[in-house]
Amino acid sequence: MIMSRIEAPRDEPTGNLLDRLLAGLPAEAVLVDPDVMASYAHDMASFCPAGVPAVVVLPRTVEQVQHVLRTATELRVPVVPQGARTGLSGAANASDGCVVLSLVRMDRILEVDPVDRIAVVEPGVVNAVLSRAVGEHGLYYPPDPSSWETCTIGGNIGTASGGLCCVKYGVTAEYVIGLDVVLADGRLMTTGRRTAKGVAGYDLTRLFVGSEGSLGVVVRAVLALKPRPPRQLVLAAEFPSAAAACDAVCRIMAGGHVPSLLELMDRTTVQAVDEHTRMDLPQTTEALLLAAFDTPDPAADLAALGALCEAAGATSVVPAEDAAESELLLQARRCALVALEAVKGTTMIDDVCVPRSRLGEMIVGVERIAEKHALTIGVVAHAGDGNTHPTVCFDAQDPEECRRARESFDEIMALGLELGGTITGEHGVGVLKKEWLAREIGPVGLEMQRAVKQVFDPLGILNPGKLF
Amino acid sequence: MIMSRIEAPRDEPTGNLLDRLLAGLPAEAVLVDPDVMASYAHDMASFCPAGVPAVVVLPRTVEQVQHVLRTATELRVPVVPQGARTGLSGAANASDGCVVLSLVRMDRILEVDPVDRIAVVEPGVVNAVLSRAVGEHGLYYPPDPSSWETCTIGGNIGTASGGLCCVKYGVTAEYVIGLDVVLADGRLMTTGRRTAKGVAGYDLTRLFVGSEGSLGVVVRAVLALKPRPPRQLVLAAEFPSAAAACDAVCRIMAGGHVPSLLELMDRTTVQAVDEHTRMDLPQTTEALLLAAFDTPDPAADLAALGALCEAAGATSVVPAEDAAESELLLQARRCALVALEAVKGTTMIDDVCVPRSRLGEMIVGVERIAEKHALTIGVVAHAGDGNTHPTVCFDAQDPEECRRARESFDEIMALGLELGGTITGEHGVGVLKKEWLAREIGPVGLEMQRAVKQVFDPLGILNPGKLF
Repeated sequence: MIMSRIEAPRDEPTGNLLDRLLAGLPAEAVLVDPDVMASYAHDMASFCPAGVPAVVVLPRTVEQVQHVLRTATELRVPVVPQGARTGLSGAANASDGCVVLSLVRMDRILEVDPVDRIAVVEPGVVNAVLSRAVGEHGLYYPPDPSSWETCTIGGNIGTASGGLCCVKYGVTAEYVIGLDVVLADGRLMTTGRRTAKGVAGYDLTRLFVGSEGSLGVVVRAVLALKPRPPRQLVLAAEFPSAAAACDAVCRIMAGGHVPSLLELMDRTTVQAVDEHTRMDLPQTTEALLLAAFDTPDPAADLAALGALCEAAGATSVVPAEDAAESELLLQARRCALVALEAVKGTTMIDDVCVPRSRLGEMIVGVERIAEKHALTIGVVAHAGDGNTHPTVCFDAQDPEECRRARESFDEIMALGLELGGTITGEHGVGVLKKEWLAREIGPVGLEMQRAVKQVFDPLGILNPGKLF
Repeated sequence: MIMSRIEAPRDEPTGNLLDRLLAGLPAEAVLVDPDVMASYAHDMASFCPAGVPAVVVLPRTVEQVQHVLRTATELRVPVVPQGARTGLSGAANASDGCVVLSLVRMDRILEVDPVDRIAVVEPGVVNAVLSRAVGEHGLYYPPDPSSWETCTIGGNIGTASGGLCCVKYGVTAEYVIGLDVVLADGRLMTTGRRTAKGVAGYDLTRLFVGSEGSLGVVVRAVLALKPRPPRQLVLAAEFPSAAAACDAVCRIMAGGHVPSLLELMDRTTVQAVDEHTRMDLPQTTEALLLAAFDTPDPAADLAALGALCEAAGATSVVPAEDAAESELLLQARRCALVALEAVKGTTMIDDVCVPRSRLGEMIVGVERIAEKHALTIGVVAHAGDGNTHPTVCFDAQDPEECRRARESFDEIMALGLELGGTITGEHGVGVLKKEWLAREIGPVGLEMQRAVKQVFDPLGILNPGKLF
C-alpha cells in the first residue's frame, strides 16, 4: 500500500544511487556484493517475504545517516533500517531495490551516569554489552529479549522488545526517555529528555518505540536505568495440567507478589527440551512453572509463592538453593525455542498476550488448535504477563503442513483477540501480522496510525510495507 | 495560531449552538448562566488569560461526548475539555465562545481486577476515590499529585501528572495502558490494551497522555495498578546549605537506594511553613530533606540513607518511629504551597526538572534570581526526580512586582534548560509556557508536534491556543 505512494523517480539506475551515497559515505560503508547483501535481506521470522536490496550501508555517524536519508528522499528509494536482524516479524526484511541501513557500526556507549541513572547510547550497541557496562556502575538495564547477546538497542527500540524480566520491570518502552531521530528527509529531531520526569509537548519518544523504523531512524537514545537488584533465586513447580499452572499464576498475582520472572512451559515444550538437552526433566509434567525473586529475602518470597503453587495443585515445588541452581533451572527455559525448532526443523513463533486472568483459556485453546490441525505446538509463556509464545513446529518441505502451520498461527491470534488480548506482546507487527493489526485496532485506529505515518514519512520511503 | 485555522461559520449565533447541543444532551447537562460559567473559565494557574465560554456541558455518557464533538465540528466551535481545573498551566482555561466540556460527571469506576492488576475508569473519577477503591482490593494506583483529593484521572491523563511517589513509581503516563478517545469529529477510537504488554502499532495511548485535550477527549481509561506496598516510614534531615542537601540526594541515588519519596524544602519554604503552621520547625535550617521507604524493612533502609545524609553534612537526622510520626513529617511538605501563598498573597509555581546531578546548581541559581529581582522565591522539590517547584511569592496588586515575578519565572526556565532540564516536569505547557515549548524542543520538533495535532484535529477546534 505504502509502496504505491513512492512515485518517480523510482527507476533511477542503481549507479546513480551508489554515486550519491558514496559522496557522503566511505567506500567500506557501502556494500553491493549480492551474496553479502543477501545476508542482510531478512530477520529471523518465518513466512515473511524479503526483497533484494540495491545496496547495504553501514554508517558510523549521525551525519552519514542524514546523508543516506537525504539521498533516499531525493531519489525516492525505500530505506530499511536494521539492527542485528534477530526480530521475529519480518520488520527488518529488505524491499526490492531498497537501501538497507544497518546501524550496527554505531555502537558506542556515550555515557553512563549513576546519579542520573541514565545511559546515552548509539543504536548499534548490543543489549548484553550495555547490560554488562552499566552493571559495572551498579546499574541495571532490565529489557532482556532472548536474543540479548546479539540484538541491538536500536532494534529493541524499533520493535519495543520485552523479555523475561518484564513481569517486574516492564518492556523497552519504559526505559527509553529521549531520542535523536533522523527524519525521512534527513533532518535531525531530538525528542524527550534526560531528566527523570518531563512533559513538554506530545510524547514523540514513545511514538518511535515500536515503530519498526517506519517513522524515522534512531541514532541516539537516552535510556533510564535501575539500581542493580540482588541476584534472583528461582523456583520450579510441576503441575498436573496447564490450567492448574495458570491458576497458580493468578493466585500469585492476586496475592500481591512481584516476582522478577514467572515463566511457563507446557508439556510439549518440556518434552522437547528434555529430548534436546537430556536434562532429565520429569516426563509426566503437564506444565512447568519457573518463578524467581530478586528481593532482599528471595527464599522467604519463594516459600510463599511455592505455597500458592501447591494450593493450585502443584505436584512438586523445588526452590533453588543458590545462584548456580537457579541458573540450571533457567537453562531449560532458555533453550525452549531451540528445542522446539529441533522437533520438525522449522518453527513459527506466535506472540499473543492475553489478560493474565485468561491465560488458562488461551493455553487450553492452543492445545485444541494443535489437535485440530494435527500439529505440534509448544507453548512457552511469560506467564506473569499473560504473554504466550505458542510455537508451531512444522516441516518446511511439506507444503500441506506449512499451510496448516500458517492456519493454526492465525487461529491462535484470533483466539487471543477473543480473550481480550493483543496479537503481539513484544515481537511487533512487521510483515507477519500486517493483516491482523487492522483487526486488532479497528478502522478508526488504523486510519489515525496511517495519518501519523504520513506526517513523518510523506513519501513513504521508510520501511515500506511494514505494519500496515 | 491554531485559532486562526478555525474558519467559517465561527459567528453562528450561540442560540444555534445551544439548540444543537440540546438535541443530544439533557437540559441539566447544559449550563449557560454567566456566573456559573465564569467558575468554569480557568484552572489554578496565575498569569494565564481565560476567555468567556459560550456554554458549559457536563455529559454523562460517551454518546453525549460524541454528540458535543460532532456539533462542535459542524459549527466550528472550539471545545475546551476539563477535569477538576486544578491544573497549574492554564491548559483548562476557556477560549472566548467555546464549549467547556467538563467530564466530571463521568465518574464511574467500571472495573478493578486484582489478577490483571488493572482498573477501568471514566475520566471524571477523582484520583483519591480511585486510590481508595483499589486499596480495598490490595492494589495501589501510585500517581499522587498534590491535588489528589479533588483532581480527576482524566485531568491527570491530560496533564501527565506526577506527585510525591514518582521517584519510585513514576508518573501518570506509566499507568495508562489503554484509552477510549472521542476524536474531534465525534468518532470513537480505542488505543492500547488491557494486557500487561502489547506492541500492536504505534503507541497512540502515550501520545494522548499529556496532550492537554488538544488531540481528543478521553472517555475511558485502562490503568495499570501495583500491589499495595507496606506503609512508608519517613525520615527528616536538616542541612546547613541547599547544596549539601542536594549532595545527599546524589549520594542516595548513586548508592542504589530506591526511596518511595525524596523531597526537599529550602529555607524560605521551611520558614513559610513554620510561620503558617507553628509546627516549630528549626529556624536555622537551610534545607530540609524528607525521605521515605515503603520496603519490607524501612527502618534499616532509612538508617543507611541517614548515614549518607550525615556524610553530606546533615546537622540533624530524625527518622520517624511509626506511621503517625511519618505523617506529621509529611504535613510540613504538604502545606508548603499554601504556606508560600500566604507570604504575599499570590504565587507563581514553576516546574523545572533538571538531571538530579544538577539539582544543587538549580537551587543556588534560583536563589541568585530571587536576589536579583528582590523577590521571595521558595523552592520545594521532588528532589529524587530533580523536579523543582520554585514558587515566586508576590503581591498581585503591585504591577511592578508582578513584572519582576514574571521575569524571574522565565529566568528560572532558562536556567533549567541551561542545566539540561525541561521547562515542565509534571505541570504541562498549557498557556503558561507556550513560548517556552519551542525553545525546549526546537523548530523541527515543534513542526512535527504541530503536524501531529493537525492529524487529530484538522479544524483546530480542540483546546485551541494551548501548547503551541
